[in-house]
Amino acid sequence: MPGKKGKLLFMAYINVPEGVPGIRSLVLFRPETGKPLYELAQVLLRGGDGPLTEAERELIAAYVSSRNQCNFCMKSHAAAARCLYGEDASVVDAVLTDVTAAELSSKMKTLLFIAGQVQLSGREVTPAAIAAAREQGASDREIHDTVLIAAAFSMFNRYVDGLASWTPEDPAVYEEMGRRMAKGYVLPKQNL
Amino acid sequence: MPGKKGKLLFMAYINVPEGVPGIRSLVLFRPETGKPLYELAQVLLRGGDGPLTEAERELIAAYVSSRNQCNFCMKSHAAAARCLYGEDASVVDAVLTDVTAAELSSKMKTLLFIAGQVQLSGREVTPAAIAAAREQGASDREIHDTVLIAAAFSMFNRYVDGLASWTPEDPAVYEEMGRRMAKGYVLPKQNL
Repeated sequence: MPGKKGKLLFMAYINVPEGVPGIRSLVLFRPETGKPLYELAQVLLRGGDGPLTEAERELIAAYVSSRNQCNFCMKSHAAAARCLYGEDASVVDAVLTDVTAAELSSKMKTLLFIAGQVQLSGREVTPAAIAAAREQGASDREIHDTVLIAAAFSMFNRYVDGLASWTPEDPAVYEEMGRRMAKGYVLPKQNL
Repeated sequence: MPGKKGKLLFMAYINVPEGVPGIRSLVLFRPETGKPLYELAQVLLRGGDGPLTEAERELIAAYVSSRNQCNFCMKSHAAAARCLYGEDASVVDAVLTDVTAAELSSKMKTLLFIAGQVQLSGREVTPAAIAAAREQGASDREIHDTVLIAAAFSMFNRYVDGLASWTPEDPAVYEEMGRRMAKGYVLPKQNL
């Protein structure tokens, strides 16, 4: 409620639960659509059988969110990626600052380049970018997952910002969120 | 296989089943992610309890796909919308030609305007656009569903075109697809 005892000074475009940030507030508003959205995040970012590590997948999510200037998704997925990278966590901020200068495998750089094309438009993805990823050893599955993660965050970013959901400012909130997300994506319940 | 006996002259960026168009080929490549994607389409575009009609929801999907120049999604969802609009089907092509001139309720025009902002970016959605929709009687749920449909097609369009999946040319293919989609979204099976 804006202005009340120094509480939230924000108001989403629709009547979502107070004090709940980002997409969590939106899936509480409509759990029916929240269910497949969270299942998609879980299988795409946490599915155990993919060739990309969970850390790499979260990095792609954070990178696309950064390009879309979606601060909620960028900060939360960057926090999850830092958790999952462990002692190599510094690569996350390096990528968000300047992907070309980051200490990252050549393959991941070509995949992030594809993700950046997808962020602009599906039609922006070029045969040359795909060929460059293949030259670095990227498989069909890695290319598929990169494109779908980038496409999915083109959705999540628009959902979160298009309804003006709450983006907390406190970095500690994202650290805690990142630790929770690193364990998996579970649809929040109304009564929690 | 390109050039073989006058068969398909296309090649997606990854090895998807031959002769299967658009997103269907991609979910056959990876059914694990296909499942929540189809469930999202079903609940968002076919869920029976929404204030927007199924025809209106398909119209928003076709409109966003048209703005993203995703011909597969635009043609297939336009066909589904024509099916669902029945004798009012001409509104679909009117919207895809010039939304401002289309014979459509003022409320739907304000919702399509919001969908167009979401297509650009979540951050493009303005309080003025939301206020205009509310003035025409749009509810929280209608605004939510409009934003999520537009966001979801920002994903589907990128998935379909970002992997260069097959876009058939024959209009009859889309007519049949539209009739099938009007009945609901069911994940295709590998052996069908």
